[in-house]
Amino acid sequence: MEKEFKVTPWDVSGNVDYEKLIKEFGVEKISDKLLERIKKHTKDLHFMLKRKVVFSHRDMNWLLDEYEKKNKFFLYTGRAPSGPIHLGHLLPWIFCKWLQDKFDVEMWFQFPDEEKFLFKEDLTLEETEKWTKENMLDIIALGFKPEKTKFIVDTKNADLMYKEACKIAKKITFSTVKATFGFENDSNIGEIFYTSMQAVPAILPSVLKKKNIPCLIPLGIDQDPHFRVARDVYPKLGYYKPAILHSIFLPSLKGDAKMSTSDENSVIFTTDKPEDVKNKINKYAFSGGQPTLEEHKKKGGNPDIDVCYQYLKMLFEEDDKKLEKIYHDYKSGKMTTGEIKNYTIEKINAFLKEHQKRREEARKKIEKFLF
Amino acid sequence: MEKEFKVTPWDVSGNVDYEKLIKEFGVEKISDKLLERIKKHTKDLHFMLKRKVVFSHRDMNWLLDEYEKKNKFFLYTGRAPSGPIHLGHLLPWIFCKWLQDKFDVEMWFQFPDEEKFLFKEDLTLEETEKWTKENMLDIIALGFKPEKTKFIVDTKNADLMYKEACKIAKKITFSTVKATFGFENDSNIGEIFYTSMQAVPAILPSVLKKKNIPCLIPLGIDQDPHFRVARDVYPKLGYYKPAILHSIFLPSLKGDAKMSTSDENSVIFTTDKPEDVKNKINKYAFSGGQPTLEEHKKKGGNPDIDVCYQYLKMLFEEDDKKLEKIYHDYKSGKMTTGEIKNYTIEKINAFLKEHQKRREEARKKIEKFLF
Repeated sequence: MEKEFKVTPWDVSGNVDYEKLIKEFGVEKISDKLLERIKKHTKDLHFMLKRKVVFSHRDMNWLLDEYEKKNKFFLYTGRAPSGPIHLGHLLPWIFCKWLQDKFDVEMWFQFPDEEKFLFKEDLTLEETEKWTKENMLDIIALGFKPEKTKFIVDTKNADLMYKEACKIAKKITFSTVKATFGFENDSNIGEIFYTSMQAVPAILPSVLKKKNIPCLIPLGIDQDPHFRVARDVYPKLGYYKPAILHSIFLPSLKGDAKMSTSDENSVIFTTDKPEDVKNKINKYAFSGGQPTLEEHKKKGGNPDIDVCYQYLKMLFEEDDKKLEKIYHDYKSGKMTTGEIKNYTIEKINAFLKEHQKRREEARKKIEKFLF
Repeated sequence: MEKEFKVTPWDVSGNVDYEKLIKEFGVEKISDKLLERIKKHTKDLHFMLKRKVVFSHRDMNWLLDEYEKKNKFFLYTGRAPSGPIHLGHLLPWIFCKWLQDKFDVEMWFQFPDEEKFLFKEDLTLEETEKWTKENMLDIIALGFKPEKTKFIVDTKNADLMYKEACKIAKKITFSTVKATFGFENDSNIGEIFYTSMQAVPAILPSVLKKKNIPCLIPLGIDQDPHFRVARDVYPKLGYYKPAILHSIFLPSLKGDAKMSTSDENSVIFTTDKPEDVKNKINKYAFSGGQPTLEEHKKKGGNPDIDVCYQYLKMLFEEDDKKLEKIYHDYKSGKMTTGEIKNYTIEKINAFLKEHQKRREEARKKIEKFLF
């Protein structure tokens, strides 16, 4: 019997069956043929593509058709600020940075600072504003090109965005958002309107430059419903439907489908100290190993459910051969749970050391990125 | 049997029974005692107050309490641009200008250029933008003080407004706007959100000056539902509930409850030429007179249903004694329909001549009024 799961932009729970989700959302799996086509332009393939961490899409072939006709696209993704950044957040952005480098394109990064405020009873706009700045540091630290990256903040850039949001909102009924997001009569009217603000950056460069520019949105698949709705609207306003690339979720330490700040013991923040990371991984990281060392040596572990292995595969072990060796060594029992945890701790801490340095340097750079 | 009527911010139809409306909306009639209290500060009373054209209110006694404690209020009203200005629009604004002069207060004038766009299928934002500028000319022509008057345009000033609108929106459910405005599942999500933008200017000066400032909103009573909803929200955000003064509608030429641009033959625009006014009044103005001159002389006319008499009473005959004489002369049959029409044409054209001159001069002044 399959476990029930739920994936909305505001709630991911249960054991996510991605094959089933693809069908539900009506998106396409990324085929080997599509990978080959991408590779023609990027020379190599990011490990997230090879390993199906970025696993499905909408209209990528159209986007590449346009690209091959010299009709360059821009990237759009976003972050709804409401707390500190964790490893799960970084995943699609690391992929975005790779796309920016390989295709040499603009990145429009949205900070919808009103979103979580509207959806969370106790969150204030003062808090989301504080987190907007803090979150920007993490994004800058990933190495986006300042001259090709624009940060837009919903409440600050509403003089550009609200008008376009109204054009989109006029074409979306309450029935539609009710069916898509599960709104009810007691939903607040800000929540109900919000999806039209999230839809804006996909056309904003086209609006500002007064020409139709293709857009590619890499995102966690939970955000797809916003664009499922908006993609029906864009052509009515004279714009292209954006292409989308979906990534799966980085699991939480405890092995839940999606790392989430709501459980502090299940998450690694980008500002965690090396000892924090060590303690959290050792104490909480769900293991695919056997209860005793002896048993592990005999029966072997299960990398497919081991959270450390997932972190290596999805984020921290770029080397395919090393990853394959870890997979087999862990599965055969040659590699112990202690060993895979230590290796993962080292990898994460090496990443975070560099990230935290760049994150501090980013404090001086924010202005360069603001639209 | 009473005729059915309907009064919403977007639709006024039927024979409006203002006594019934007051009860439905839960507002208070302006008492003689309140008039006396206002007069203490203004020295004289505007004829619209004396003649119950401005006929009901919310919390005016509180507003005057604050004023008497030297806690000065500001005025807020607005215009949703979607077409040319007619005499019916001018009515509450002429009263506003008097209030600004008498109380020496700031006026915040909102142009929600997205409103009619969201509610009217065929209207574009390009059109509402054009009308925003044109409509500003009429408001400036009425003589508001530039140093004390601020024009705010929703799409242009959304960088200030959208954030506050979200705070308000978070406290309003779909159930509430459904019950108040009659929205349905097929309403668009822009319409649903809109009331929170209309609510913003009542607190915007308080937000910007970081102190709680009382607000008085003079408006046509059809706009009251927006503030019936918003007045429940303001105190939750730490702001005063604004006081409100309601005016009744100027009837259309044909005698419908509210002059409306939807019937061009039933409306006098501020840009109409003297011959237009003459023709429209002579041809279309609903008369309280008798079918023949002979009969009129014998039986007399009915000023209470005569549209010209209403225009004189509500807008163009400031002199109480002259108005009373017209009332009795028309009622007795001494004054003919031709005579009351000619007198009204003269009055309107004298007003429009001056208004149109000031309206042209206003083209150079718009910048001074923009926030």
